[in-house]
Amino acid sequence: MSTIQTAAIIGGGVIGAGWVARFIENGIDVAIYDPAPDAMVKIEAVLANSRYAYNKLTKVQRRREGSISFCENLAKAVSNAQIIVESVPERLDTKQSVYAEIESHAAVDAIIVSSTSGIMPSDLQSKMQNPERFLVAHPFNPVYLLPLVELVGGQKTSSLVIDTATAFYLSMGMKPLRVKKEIEAFIADRLLEAIWRESLWLVKDGVATTEDIDDAVRFGFGLRYAQMGVFDTYRVAGGEAGMRHFMEQFGPCLKWPWSKLTDVPDFNDELVDLIVTQSDQQSGHLSIREMERMRDDNLIGILHALKDNHWGAGETLVNHEVRLLEAANDPI
Amino acid sequence: MSTIQTAAIIGGGVIGAGWVARFIENGIDVAIYDPAPDAMVKIEAVLANSRYAYNKLTKVQRRREGSISFCENLAKAVSNAQIIVESVPERLDTKQSVYAEIESHAAVDAIIVSSTSGIMPSDLQSKMQNPERFLVAHPFNPVYLLPLVELVGGQKTSSLVIDTATAFYLSMGMKPLRVKKEIEAFIADRLLEAIWRESLWLVKDGVATTEDIDDAVRFGFGLRYAQMGVFDTYRVAGGEAGMRHFMEQFGPCLKWPWSKLTDVPDFNDELVDLIVTQSDQQSGHLSIREMERMRDDNLIGILHALKDNHWGAGETLVNHEVRLLEAANDPI
Repeated sequence: MSTIQTAAIIGGGVIGAGWVARFIENGIDVAIYDPAPDAMVKIEAVLANSRYAYNKLTKVQRRREGSISFCENLAKAVSNAQIIVESVPERLDTKQSVYAEIESHAAVDAIIVSSTSGIMPSDLQSKMQNPERFLVAHPFNPVYLLPLVELVGGQKTSSLVIDTATAFYLSMGMKPLRVKKEIEAFIADRLLEAIWRESLWLVKDGVATTEDIDDAVRFGFGLRYAQMGVFDTYRVAGGEAGMRHFMEQFGPCLKWPWSKLTDVPDFNDELVDLIVTQSDQQSGHLSIREMERMRDDNLIGILHALKDNHWGAGETLVNHEVRLLEAANDPI
Repeated sequence: MSTIQTAAIIGGGVIGAGWVARFIENGIDVAIYDPAPDAMVKIEAVLANSRYAYNKLTKVQRRREGSISFCENLAKAVSNAQIIVESVPERLDTKQSVYAEIESHAAVDAIIVSSTSGIMPSDLQSKMQNPERFLVAHPFNPVYLLPLVELVGGQKTSSLVIDTATAFYLSMGMKPLRVKKEIEAFIADRLLEAIWRESLWLVKDGVATTEDIDDAVRFGFGLRYAQMGVFDTYRVAGGEAGMRHFMEQFGPCLKWPWSKLTDVPDFNDELVDLIVTQSDQQSGHLSIREMERMRDDNLIGILHALKDNHWGAGETLVNHEVRLLEAANDPI
């Protein structure tokens, strides 16, 4: 249960707009500030996607949407907000100056969260007047459908604020994951970065095209990862002999001479051109809007598929989303 | 369309048994050789899972199962096989001696495939009399549900044999992916190895527990990867500005000082104990059989969810499985 009813979103890119979508779906009133002239047009495009998705996700009566006001300056956007979400470009100095401006106009007890995917919260909060009310809440695209949000506090963050944020994200059907130690890129993006680096090697070395790699993911381990993580998957692979057996069997593989795994490819124009060309061949016949719609239709189908499956001890596997929507005005 | 009707499976572990399940479901007669005294019991356990899964995957009349004969020696198992699948432990010398025995008893034109997840086919075939009929066909657990099979030829493999194998795996509802260059661990397992290594660091450093990492996967990017791969996901993230924009924005991140990403953790008893303990806390209340059933129920649901979704230009996204089963005795 959360008492947060009003929010400000600073920065209306794909992540900021995704937050707007999730907030208003859950009845939160949102004030937006983004200086870009086409910001509202871009946000409306994301809202068209999210409304389509939520409508398809459940047939039950949905709660009344929160309101949206588009503000001409940051001061106005944050003035009445209980939570302020920063989703501006990934530069430490930019973000720090946004926090300074927020603090001079917002309520002193408003929670301030950053959507950063990599910068350490201790660095972000280092120049704040009231850094204890700051944390990172890192979501995943599309924000209006994927449940995960990584919560990371800095050295000066109050644990009470993280508790409040946890309750808030839970109330919106999300899966808040509290990261135990501050680390650049947190958890999921470190895993994604490892995949990305290895994928670049495979393309660069001509082992596989971008389409080959995408097929290797979505027809294979991607289907596993939608419902079971890294360690449980290997636990099952170990069979009745268990996790220790698996570790003993496969641990030594880490020392195989796969030198590319521990090296970073040179990120030059040639590699960029190769990937852009292959990606165009793979999906250039589709607009981004078409790809988003296909992605969302698939995610909705998967969320539905997982809704009724349980993961031991009565824990519903994924579908916070559908559960919440079907609970309608009966908040969890 | 494939003319292969008879197969031999050498080694009845979880992968070999998974192949038995997929083969008989598709009407292929299978002869099995595994010297372990409990091999047939373990294979029957996998077949119980696969029959449950296939039955749940479609309501249409399924084709008649292929027969199973459990042979007391390898010679008998391979004598009548058009394709011979080696799924024995991952040691080069063991596999090579199995191929020598196979070649002295099998038809000279029988295709010989290895289920190895990492050893180079050129090494595996190096001592064979007729190495041109050998290739790697690397599946993913559970073999009876996941569509992906990586096909990798060695220096001496005939491309005609790879064509024949491609048609065979397609006829069983799989997604054969031809790896363009020989490389240890092929494609998917290189990506999985990268994730595994980084996951070990996160646990070792106390950033996250095994359960945290599994949650970060299955509530976030795992849902994306079940239906869209690495490059298409980033293509969409780049928005209408496209793949080049994405690469320019995020490529430089590879040079951030995430030193752990390019280092291999020391695989000692302390790390093994830590992971075993955390994994027991996470899932020790479930038997492996229960976890398999949950995994399969979820996979069936996801395959169903993706069945009717298309991925541009009429290509069905994932569900070779369901399409094939629903085509029943009308093979594709």
